[in-house]
Parts: sequence; structure tokens; C-alpha cells
Amino acid sequence: MNTITMKLHADKLIQMALEEDITSEDVSTNAVMPKAQKGSVDLIAKQDGIIAGLDVYARTFELLDEDTQIEFQCADGDAVKKGQLLAVVTGDIRVLLSGERVALNYLQRMSGIATYTHEVVELLKGSSVTLLDTRKTTPNCRIFEKYAVRVGGGQNHRYNLSDGVLLKDNHIGAAGSVTKAIQMAKAYAPFVRKIEVEVETLEQVKEAAEAGADIIMLDNMTPDTMKQAIDLINGRAKTECSGNITRENIKKIREIGVDYVSSGALTHSAPILDISMKNLHAV
Amino acid sequence: MNTITMKLHADKLIQMALEEDITSEDVSTNAVMPKAQKGSVDLIAKQDGIIAGLDVYARTFELLDEDTQIEFQCADGDAVKKGQLLAVVTGDIRVLLSGERVALNYLQRMSGIATYTHEVVELLKGSSVTLLDTRKTTPNCRIFEKYAVRVGGGQNHRYNLSDGVLLKDNHIGAAGSVTKAIQMAKAYAPFVRKIEVEVETLEQVKEAAEAGADIIMLDNMTPDTMKQAIDLINGRAKTECSGNITRENIKKIREIGVDYVSSGALTHSAPILDISMKNLHAV
Amino acid sequence: MNTITMKLHADKLIQMALEEDITSEDVSTNAVMPKAQKGSVDLIAKQDGIIAGLDVYARTFELLDEDTQIEFQCADGDAVKKGQLLAVVTGDIRVLLSGERVALNYLQRMSGIATYTHEVVELLKGSSVTLLDTRKTTPNCRIFEKYAVRVGGGQNHRYNLSDGVLLKDNHIGAAGSVTKAIQMAKAYAPFVRKIEVEVETLEQVKEAAEAGADIIMLDNMTPDTMKQAIDLINGRAKTECSGNITRENIKKIREIGVDYVSSGALTHSAPILDISMKNLHAV
Amino acid sequence: MNTITMKLHADKLIQMALEEDITSEDVSTNAVMPKAQKGSVDLIAKQDGIIAGLDVYARTFELLDEDTQIEFQCADGDAVKKGQLLAVVTGDIRVLLSGERVALNYLQRMSGIATYTHEVVELLKGSSVTLLDTRKTTPNCRIFEKYAVRVGGGQNHRYNLSDGVLLKDNHIGAAGSVTKAIQMAKAYAPFVRKIEVEVETLEQVKEAAEAGADIIMLDNMTPDTMKQAIDLINGRAKTECSGNITRENIKKIREIGVDYVSSGALTHSAPILDISMKNLHAV
Amino acid sequence: MNTITMKLHADKLIQMALEEDITSEDVSTNAVMPKAQKGSVDLIAKQDGIIAGLDVYARTFELLDEDTQIEFQCADGDAVKKGQLLAVVTGDIRVLLSGERVALNYLQRMSGIATYTHEVVELLKGSSVTLLDTRKTTPNCRIFEKYAVRVGGGQNHRYNLSDGVLLKDNHIGAAGSVTKAIQMAKAYAPFVRKIEVEVETLEQVKEAAEAGADIIMLDNMTPDTMKQAIDLINGRAKTECSGNITRENIKKIREIGVDYVSSGALTHSAPILDISMKNLHAV
Amino acid sequence: MNTITMKLHADKLIQMALEEDITSEDVSTNAVMPKAQKGSVDLIAKQDGIIAGLDVYARTFELLDEDTQIEFQCADGDAVKKGQLLAVVTGDIRVLLSGERVALNYLQRMSGIATYTHEVVELLKGSSVTLLDTRKTTPNCRIFEKYAVRVGGGQNHRYNLSDGVLLKDNHIGAAGSVTKAIQMAKAYAPFVRKIEVEVETLEQVKEAAEAGADIIMLDNMTPDTMKQAIDLINGRAKTECSGNITRENIKKIREIGVDYVSSGALTHSAPILDISMKNLHAV
Repeated sequence: MNTITMKLHADKLIQMALEEDITSEDVSTNAVMPKAQKGSVDLIAKQDGIIAGLDVYARTFELLDEDTQIEFQCADGDAVKKGQLLAVVTGDIRVLLSGERVALNYLQRMSGIATYTHEVVELLKGSSVTLLDTRKTTPNCRIFEKYAVRVGGGQNHRYNLSDGVLLKDNHIGAAGSVTKAIQMAKAYAPFVRKIEVEVETLEQVKEAAEAGADIIMLDNMTPDTMKQAIDLINGRAKTECSGNITRENIKKIREIGVDYVSSGALTHSAPILDISMKNLHAV
Repeated sequence: MNTITMKLHADKLIQMALEEDITSEDVSTNAVMPKAQKGSVDLIAKQDGIIAGLDVYARTFELLDEDTQIEFQCADGDAVKKGQLLAVVTGDIRVLLSGERVALNYLQRMSGIATYTHEVVELLKGSSVTLLDTRKTTPNCRIFEKYAVRVGGGQNHRYNLSDGVLLKDNHIGAAGSVTKAIQMAKAYAPFVRKIEVEVETLEQVKEAAEAGADIIMLDNMTPDTMKQAIDLINGRAKTECSGNITRENIKKIREIGVDYVSSGALTHSAPILDISMKNLHAV
Repeated sequence: MNTITMKLHADKLIQMALEEDITSEDVSTNAVMPKAQKGSVDLIAKQDGIIAGLDVYARTFELLDEDTQIEFQCADGDAVKKGQLLAVVTGDIRVLLSGERVALNYLQRMSGIATYTHEVVELLKGSSVTLLDTRKTTPNCRIFEKYAVRVGGGQNHRYNLSDGVLLKDNHIGAAGSVTKAIQMAKAYAPFVRKIEVEVETLEQVKEAAEAGADIIMLDNMTPDTMKQAIDLINGRAKTECSGNITRENIKKIREIGVDYVSSGALTHSAPILDISMKNLHAV
Repeated sequence: MNTITMKLHADKLIQMALEEDITSEDVSTNAVMPKAQKGSVDLIAKQDGIIAGLDVYARTFELLDEDTQIEFQCADGDAVKKGQLLAVVTGDIRVLLSGERVALNYLQRMSGIATYTHEVVELLKGSSVTLLDTRKTTPNCRIFEKYAVRVGGGQNHRYNLSDGVLLKDNHIGAAGSVTKAIQMAKAYAPFVRKIEVEVETLEQVKEAAEAGADIIMLDNMTPDTMKQAIDLINGRAKTECSGNITRENIKKIREIGVDYVSSGALTHSAPILDISMKNLHAV
Repeated sequence: MNTITMKLHADKLIQMALEEDITSEDVSTNAVMPKAQKGSVDLIAKQDGIIAGLDVYARTFELLDEDTQIEFQCADGDAVKKGQLLAVVTGDIRVLLSGERVALNYLQRMSGIATYTHEVVELLKGSSVTLLDTRKTTPNCRIFEKYAVRVGGGQNHRYNLSDGVLLKDNHIGAAGSVTKAIQMAKAYAPFVRKIEVEVETLEQVKEAAEAGADIIMLDNMTPDTMKQAIDLINGRAKTECSGNITRENIKKIREIGVDYVSSGALTHSAPILDISMKNLHAV
Repeated sequence: MNTITMKLHADKLIQMALEEDITSEDVSTNAVMPKAQKGSVDLIAKQDGIIAGLDVYARTFELLDEDTQIEFQCADGDAVKKGQLLAVVTGDIRVLLSGERVALNYLQRMSGIATYTHEVVELLKGSSVTLLDTRKTTPNCRIFEKYAVRVGGGQNHRYNLSDGVLLKDNHIGAAGSVTKAIQMAKAYAPFVRKIEVEVETLEQVKEAAEAGADIIMLDNMTPDTMKQAIDLINGRAKTECSGNITRENIKKIREIGVDYVSSGALTHSAPILDISMKNLHAV
């Protein structure tokens, strides 16, 4: 993860997560360890998957004690195997114990997203379709989850409502028509924004392409209609279709010629990747 | 959700989630709707499940505009059906559009957890085993996720490291023995804390019961060994076993006589419940 | 100013500005007015100009006392005249006195920027050139200053480093060439970003257009070179030139055919518009 | 700038300014520089003026990466010349690029204020009149702007409403008379506060001096009336006149015998001093 | 307490105090009261004393629920008697129970300080000596404690290090002499600051008066030496002596002619005034 | 104090306390010491007592300048004597002067609490009664004050409303009966919470013991009634009596057989321990 992003944005969230887990003190640890003692612990994968979030994992301990040392045996994006040693963490044992849960909660979630994303990217391999995430991220975790999607091989759609324009049915309704909505967005939005519009019919597809949309999202269309839409657009705009990729329908999407497919499940329903800390010992 | 908890803790997190999604403005909405216009939108379930987080959903819009009105057609804990109308939200259409994603991100995640928890609780029905959550929650979402577990019929384990004592293998190692660890915890912890200890062998079970542990967690034991452990404890302490409940092994756990079973998956791997906002129209 | 932006972002900054000006209490006001007393005061222009920031002005008093009433006699974007009554503010006189300075500091600055922007926009009138702001804003005032530019008739360039791509000489140097930089940006940036590149020679202009830049910024070129550049680009990208508009050179820029001209002075060097509060009296 | 003030107050504001400019990441820089690379860049004056804010400039980079090194070739308060090398900054090139704008936004503004202040101070040279700033500062920039005034040779008036008493016409009106207002302020304010009162007539001047005001501000008086006022006060209080110093009227103010003259323009209307970062190269 | 001070400064501290006492929820109350129920409770004095902090007490409940109603039967500064009804609080019983401790912690401490201050003020009655507080306040409670001193009849010394100048032995040592220190302070400090200097010998007293100190603090002097000092100063500066007032020595201090006496004990060692909430009942 | 607690919770509060005392700068110190100068100062006890809070004292200076060095001559919990050298602090003299008051305000208060607690613990020596604190702590100081109680030899009761259950008369009233309240708490509270109930009559004592309360608080009972209550409970629950320990009644409490006695005075009414910084000199 970029060090500036970590400093400016991740640090504050990790700190809050630590405060969430320790409102006064770690009673169990402090009861049995009244004083600092140096120790070491192994980070071990308990499932196969793609690892993501090692810097966030490390930062969690460093925020508790900047002298904590982490030696990584792998890097974000690596495919790791069940039982594989991922890192060795050395520092005050109290820090290792008190920070363990928060550090793993981040690492497991991020690796789960990377793993799930990677699986979908594999299904699209060989095609020209690019996999995108959405804004369906866990509240206050977007910076971590969008990063994990990239680590898994996906690309990011807009970060939030401020840095991308996506005109949906309600926006079109408010504007009066697809053409009107695109015109209003072009007039209002900073000129560095691309204008994306979500359409449901071939009629709308045509209107959007003619009004100069940069990206056209094909919503709830059958593969056949999508194909027609793409022919109609004929390169005048990039195309995106949304969601519901399964092993069954993936074949058709691959061949339709759509540029992007976006999936909310990458961030909202990926199960974690099981990872644990083992073999704590004094050093 | 308790109104005081909402005010003191949830509000700040929801506000942060809104700032995460809107760093300057909602460009798309502002482009097509330069002025406030009153409208109404339906909240509709797209899957069967248990609903949880309606207050959080409502609060998201209220934080953007306190005049937003939400009429609920159901309550937290209700089993809802695909297609069911859950609520009608009325207010400035710009608020409805700009708050939609954050409100749904919370509601879908919380309902997903409640739904998943409910399924596991059903598997335990008729037994005397109580289902517990863990600290394996999403960072900065614990207040929401632990509430969702309760809504789904589970109970909460300790909230965090400060309000419960749980002596694991590393704590026992640091103390020297199970007995030593329990004694140190009793001496150090506020006297209102129950002392829980995690044990791996029958030898340790015996030691824990004799040293006066309030709760004994049976870690990684076979059902047969667990049964022996429970006989050995003989009511001197509550018993908990951890995780990995499946349809296959659930039967054995039901009959062993353990008091509690805890599961990290409730919060770290429950998929969301699909819910959406439809039929926006001016009023 | 959009009400959601106000709630999510402006409120916090206005609150901080009030805390900056009142670290314990307004000693002068509290000394002579121990109790609340209702009063009214006029907001009056002391110079001709374009007014901007009326909502921010009002919000400052509301944050001190939500019962404060403001009746506006004009709206953001209006050309106001020296001596003109802009608004009447009614509420606890102590609130009117204690909030006056912060409220005016915002309103004067924002109106100064709108006035200055408007003057430059007038110089460009009749041409197809659009005036843009830059990131040369006052720290922690960007949300207010970029809004004021829009009120004055300008448009906004990217909001910050996260929501727009602008490849300058140093980025090009790091990448190796204009082409390389554009390719790397297209591969890395979320696909909703337009790619802008800053070039200094016609050679680079050609390279940028061919590599598919969405916007080409012509840096430090003479009007004649700019004209050649625009011919070379031939509609394949939007064009922007930066800064230093004066009454003398404006004519040439108007006729060159460049799409956008950006100016840091709009936000970093506009003098304030003088506005004051007068005729405070009890009601 | 004092290191304690920097730590306690400036750091938080600089951090916020960086978050304002980077809401997720610096996309352009990260696209072309995926890894840290050490580099060096020159800070160069593009106008003649007085430099102020070098510590703030340096701190901006240090907050992004504490290993950034800055070698200054000048100090706050120095008169610098167009083209002069002011500093060399060495560190991760990504940090140099991502922090550049915020660092310059502070430095240019502060130097602009110091330069403008210095010019006015020069006009008062040889007289006994001291130049003061006001509370007409940019919101959330006061700590920087009041410092810049001192660097330019001016002195600071009160910092805010809490640490100085200044009774204006509205306070006098609320109290009933100049005498009453002064008495109430002496009774209420912490005894370490000096009492300043703003007066408009010679009648009020007399009343203020007799009631024991520590400082008397002569508001909107002609030079002749001011002279009479100063004679009337006859050393019983310090005197201040406010604003509107021009090359034309400065001569009269110099000779009237007033102790202080305060000017809002120092902070609200000083144009920036143009400074830039050039010659970035890997090292 | 001034409503602006309350909004800008007290609210944040009270909110933090509530978060300190409720990190997730009030388990006891929520267990027995799953739903809102309107109730009423009496605020009753359990000791004689001076009441202070009623607004802070009320605000604590309002921050939990803005619909809470408080009817006061007394006002800040009133002498209350053991058993006296001070207020009736009506609202959601859960709010009354959950906010009780924080509300009372503030009210009891503030009333304790007002009571203690009042006792010392009574000892000084009839003399011309004014009682002052110091900066020896409880961290993060100064805004409340300094207010309580005023309610008890004392006056406030400087609020903090930024709004008053007090040159102590170490400052004098650093400057070189009393005269030097005063000169440096006059040159550096905003001109609205009075200069106070702490002296230990008659030699220093003389030096301070001649150098133009506004206030001279007589440190660790016998009553006789103080008297000589005051004669020496002869009205050229205000005089302050510090601390250790007892029933025994108070008589001498009264007659010496010193203007101010300051006491840290007012805020750092006043015991609380016992106040409780009784007779909760549903309404 | 535990280093993790210090980092996660104390640092923020100490930082706020410093900002409370320095809103812009330490004018006195900066006036006489324009530049950093290394110096050293002694920390000396001015009263006999138990020292507590040395880490917090040190941290205050480190937050202003991480290079400050503190050599302690004693440790938290030590009995110190009037005149004893406790520590030597070395660093920038401006830091030593500017941080002195906040550092001492914490140290004096914490040591005062430890000293007072120690005195009460001494009165209970030889008995089996354990002394507890309460939630009657100074707002936003609980983390410091509860620690000081432990240093003084007391133990902590629950930290706040979230981590312990204590059913008082109002909870019992809301539930309907002691039995009902205990049942509801057992059903609602996380199972790691002990259930404490406050009772006033022997009838209630019996009911509480039978309903399975873990701890029974005997409220406002005479020593004789308490003795009967303890006999009635007969080991089924721990017992606590609250407050009002005096030299006179302590003997009876010692012999009654109650397990715990809690006292709010430990934290709300302990006078500070006088400690000062002396002998500042350049090094």
C-alpha cells in the first residue's frame, strides 16, 4: 500500500480499530505480563489464497510500538499455500498479543477480497474484459478493500461519488432524458470527469452514444441485447456491464465484447482468508 | 439499536462513512438536480432473510438532512421475503440519492450477518447450546456487527480486550501454568470480570476447574474429548467450544452438553443480504 | 452551496474557525451583555462585486445558535453595489457579535474570489475559452474557494490529486517519455479518469495526441506555438493553457482556439470584497 | 515558527490540508512511480520578497515522510530575490511530488503576507508608529498568518476574542455609555486583560481616557481630529488607528503621534509571493 | 455558562466524558428497559454549599436525548441546603439512568469548587483583596473549573499560557534580569497583554516597578516584607500574592494592602459537593 | 502505566490538555527565549505521599519534544518524602517551561489519589476487605485516576457502564423485582459479565442470592444488618458495601466479613500531592 495513503488515511482508521478493541487495556495480557518481554511470533496461512494487506498488518503493531519488527516472507499479491510461513513478527510480547486480532481482522479480510477477485479474474482470462469493483464496500474500509481488489488483479471503478460521474435511472428521470442528463453533467462536472451513463434499452444506448457519453453501462440486458448495444455504440464509448458473474454465464460475457464488468460481491461478500499467528516465544 | 449507543458511537462512524463516499460533492446528483425536490423511494428486499440495521439505515439519511422521513414496514429481527416492501423514505431527492449507497452498505451487511446467524441458531434449536460471536469483526464496524448477531438470535461474547478476560495458550505460557494464569488474572482484573481460560487437554481442563475459572473454552477437541471435559468440569464452570459448525458436525455438538459455541464466521464471512431502493419519484 | 457538502464538510471547518477565534469566550461581549437579548443587524456591501458564500455566512451564526434567522436580499452570484443591503440577521445579540468576524472572513474571501473570477470571465466573453481554477487554493479552504470560482462564472479543474490525473514534466521524466507516462497512467488510474498531460514542445504535443491523452496542457508556449499545437492536435484532445492572463495578452489567447485556460490567481491572490455588518439594534 | 506551536497546532492543520489534497492517493505520481526512489528538488523564488513559513513548508513533507531532508539556504524574514535558491529538498520523489502543492500553498501565502507587511512597515519607518494586524485572517490559517505578519516586521494585535478586550460601538451601546462599558469590562474580564475601546468622537475620547481605558482606538477620524484626540488623551492610554494606509495619507499618520495603526489588508488581501520547486532529479 | 462557550467547547468535552463512561452501551439499563419509557427524577443536594454547573448537568442529558426536559429550582451561585430540591429532570428513563453519573460528576465537582471558593471569599470579605484562581486545574476541565470559581465569587487569572504574560524566576534567569525580562516581554508580546512578573526580594520589586511591570507577584514573602513591597510599588503596578491562605494568616493578608491573592487549591483540592438523583418514577 | 494504554488513550488526552493550556503559544517563555537552549530541572516532592503518574508526567514533555530526557529516581507506588528528588528532566528549556504546568497537574492529582487510597488501604490492613474505586471520577480523567487507585493499593471496580452490570434500585423497579432484574440481566448481558445487584433489605438480600447474583452490594445498612446479610448469603455471592469509611467506623467494617468496600472519595475528593519543579539551569 502506498506509504502516503497509509500515513494520511489508513493510520487513522487502524488507530480507531485498535481503540475499538482496547477501550482501557488488554486485561488478560496485562494480568500475566506486567512487564515488557521481547518475543517472536509466526504469521501462517491456514488456507490457500492471495495475500493482501501485509503493510496494514505491520502498521497495526507499529502503531502500538514503533520498535516492532516484521520480516515478511511474501509480498502482497503472492499466492500463498495453507501452512506457509508469511512473516515473523518480533517485539514486546504484550504488543504482539494486544494487536493480534485487529491486525488479523484487516489482513484476513483484505486477503479474502484479493483471493475472491483473483478467482473471478481467472474466469475472465484470455478475454479483453476487465473486472471492476463498485462502491459496495464496507463502511470505513474502502481504502483497504479497493486496494485489495487491485492486488487480486481487478481494477477500481470510481472511488466515490465525488470523483466520478455515473448517471443512473433516477438521474436521467430528474434530467428528463438521457441526452439531457449527459448535457447537464458535461456542463456541471469538472471537465476532467468522464461521463458514464446507465441505460436499459437499445433506444437509450443510441441516445447515450450520440450525446457523447464516455462510458455506457448496460444494465440488466440479456447477452444478446448487450451484443446489439455494443454494435450500436461501435467504439464511440467504453462499455460496462454489471454483476452476477457465474461460472455458467461467464462464457457469454467473455464473448460479447463488453470492455468492463463490475461486481459488488468482490467487496461485500468475499469470505475472509484464514490466517493465524502461531508459535509465540520469548527471544 | 439503542438510541444512546447510536448517538454516542454509531453517528460518528456513519458520518465518517458518508465522508468516505462524498469527499467534495455528489457530482452526478448535483449536475441534474440543482435544487431540492421532495421525493419518495421504496426499500425492497431482493432476497429472503432476517433484517437488521433499520435504524442505522434511517440515521444515514437523517445525518444528511434531519427532515428525511422513513416509514418502516418491518422491524429488526423480522424474516423478510424477496420483493417485500421494507420501508418508504421521503425527503429531498438529492439526499435520497447521495445517501443511498452508504445506507445500503450498512443495512445489507448487518442483515447478512443476522441472516447467517439465524441459520446457525436454527441448527442449534432444541439444544441448550447458545451461539456466540467473537472479536473477528470488521474493523470499525463492531458496534453494528455485534448488534446484528443479537438480532439474528445469537449472543455476544466479550466486546473487546478491555471488558472480558480470556487466557489463551500464550497467556498461560507467559504465566507458567493454567493455575498460575488464573491466579494472576484474578489478582489483576477488576473483580467484576469473569475469568475464561482456553485449554487443549483434559489435564488442563482439570487444572482450570480447580483453579476457579468461570468459563473454560475447549479448544480443538474431538467431541468425545469434549464430553469427557464437560464431565470433568461437572458444573464448576461454564463451557465454550469454538467454531467450525457444519451441518455434519452440529448434531454431535448439540448432544455433548457444552454451554456455548462461538463462531467467527458470523461476522467475518457472512455474505450480505441483497436489498435495494426502487421506484424513486417526486411527491 | 449544496446542503450535503455543507453538512459533511463545511460545518466542521466553520466550527474549527469559530474555535480558532473563541478559545474560551468572547470576553468583550460577555462583559457587557450577561444575558441573551434579541437583536437585528444589517449585512451591507462596501464595494461593488459578485457575492458568494451567503450560506456559509449564515451557517456560521447557526452553528453558534440554531435559532438565528437570516433574511437574504440577494443570492450567490448576484452583482452587488456599494451600500446595498444584502441580508438582515436576527438573533441573540451576543451571537451576532461573537460570530461576526468569522462569518465575514468567509463571506469576504469567497466574494473576493467570485468578483475576481467574474472579471476574468468577462475578458473571455464571446470566445469559446473556458476559465478554470487550480489547486493553488488556501489550505483548508478549498471547498469554499472552488465553489466561489463557480459562482464567479469559472469552472473547476480537478478537485485534488486523487480525482484527476495530470502528468507534469517530473512524471514524464520518471516514466521515461510522454508516451510511456500516458500508458502507465491509463494502466494504473481508475478508468473513469481522464488523462491530462503537460507538454512544452510541439514534439511532445504530437506524442501526447498520439498516445491518446484526453487533455493536453500547453505550458509556457508563445501564442504562435500554441496555435501550431492546437492545429497538430486537431481535435484529438482538449487543450488547456495555464495562467498569466492580462488585459494585454487576453486578445491573443481568445483567438488561438485553446479550450481552457487555468489561473491560480483566482484563488491565491484575489483581494477580498469589503462587506460589513451595521446598524445592530435590539428588537 | 516555535516548535511547540508547530507540534500542538500547526501539525493538525497541515495534516488536514494534505488530506484535503489527497483523499485517496496521488494517482498521477503513483501511476508512474510504483516504488520509492530518492530524489532532490530545488525551492526557488520567482519574485523578490520576504520569505516566511519555511518550517511549515518543511513540516508538510516531514508529515508525509519523516525521513525527508531539507537544507535551507535562507531563513524566515530574509529578503529573497527572483531566481534565488531557497532550499534543497531530498527524499522519496513520490513524497516530493505529492506534498509540493500544499507546501507551496502555505509558503507562498505566508511569504506574500510577510512581503506586504514589510512594505507597509517601510512606509512607517522613522516614525514611532507600530503596525498591527487584525482578526481579518483566513479561517483556519490564523496561526500561520499572524506569524507571517511578525516575520514581515509587524506586530500582532490580540489573537482572538478570548485573549483581548475590544469594546466597539455595539458593546458601548449595550452597556449604555463608554464609561459603563469600560467599567463592566474591568469588572468581568480577567485582570490580566488590557481594556481597549473604540471611539468616534472627541467626547467619547475624553470619556474613555477618564474611565481608565488602557488603549483607545480612534475610528474613522480625520488626521486633525486624531491629533486633537491624542492631545486630549495626553498619555493616559495608548492610541490606535485603524486601516486604509496609502502612500498618500501615510505621511499624516506618521506625524499625528498615534502609537499603533492596524491593517486588515495585511492578511486578507496580500497577494502570494511566487515560489516554485524546480529541477527534480534522482539522487 | 455562556451558551456559545458551551456549544464551542463544553459540548465536545461532555460528549467525550459520556463516551468514556459508555464504550458500547449501558448494559444494566438496557437489560431491564428494552424500550423508551418516560420518567422523572429529582436532583437533590446532600450537603450545604454553592451550586455551579447546572447548565453542564442539563447538557449531559440533552446530548443523549435532546428531548430531555430539566426544570431548575435554583440557579448557579445559589447557596443550597442539604435536602433541597434543585431540579426535576424528565425524559426517557434510560437516558436519565445512563447519563446520571457523568452529569453528577461534573455538577458535584463544579459545585465543590464554587463552595470552596465562596468560603475563601467570605474570609476576605470587607477587605479590598480579590481572590484569583490559577492554572492548577484538572486537565481538560479548565473551562468548567474557571467558571465555577467565578460562580463562587472569585475572579479568574489568565486562562492559559497564551493569553497572559507571567515572568517567573526561570524567565528572569533566561533574560538576565527583571528589567531585561520585562523589556523582552513588552517587545515580544501582543501589546494587549499586561506584563506580570514574579519577584522574591525588595530589590526585584523596585526593579519591576521601574521597568513598568503591570502586575507584580510577591512570592514567598512574609507579611512584613509584602507590606514594604507594596509601599515601594506605590500604585505603579497591581500587586498579587500567591496561595496558602488559612484562617490564621488571612487577617494579615487582609490588612497588607495587596490587590490580589491567588490560590491553586480552589481548583486542585476542593472536595466535591454531594448531590444526588432520587425518586425516579415513570410519568 | 501500560505503554499500549498510554499510546491509545492517554496520549490523546495529554495532547488535549496541552492544547487547553497553549492555544497559540507560551508568550512568556517565547519572549525571553527566542531559541532552543538545553537545560535541566529537578522534580521534587513537597509533601510526603505515594507517587503515581510518572509516565504521564514524562509523556507530557515528550509530546512537546520527543528528545526530552527524564531520569527517574523513584517509581510509581513509592512512598516519597518531602524534599525528595523524584526525577531530573533534561531538554529544551522552552519545553520544560511550557510543559511544566500540565505535567504537574497530572502528576499531582494522580499522586494525591494514590496517597489518599494508600491511607485507606492501611486502615483496612490485616482484614480480608478489599478497597475499590467507583465511577465517580473526574470527566476525561478516568484512565489516569483508576490507575492511580491501583498504584495506591486499591482495586478497580468496573471501568464504565459497558463493562460491568450493576443493578440499582431504579433498575430493580423497572424490572419489577430483584429476581426479575437478575434474570433479565443474565438473559441480556454478554455471558462474561458478572451480575451485581444493590440491595437495601434482608428480604432483597435473600432474593438476590437465590436468583444467582454474582455480587451483592449492601446499601445503607447498619453493620449489624450487614452481618446478618453476609450470613444469609453464606458464600453464594461476593459482597460489597459502599463508602463512608472513617477512622471511627472502619473497625466494624473490618470485622463484618464483607469482601469489598468501595469509595467514591478516592477519586472525587482526594487533595493533590504537592510536587514542584525546581533548579532549572542551562546544561
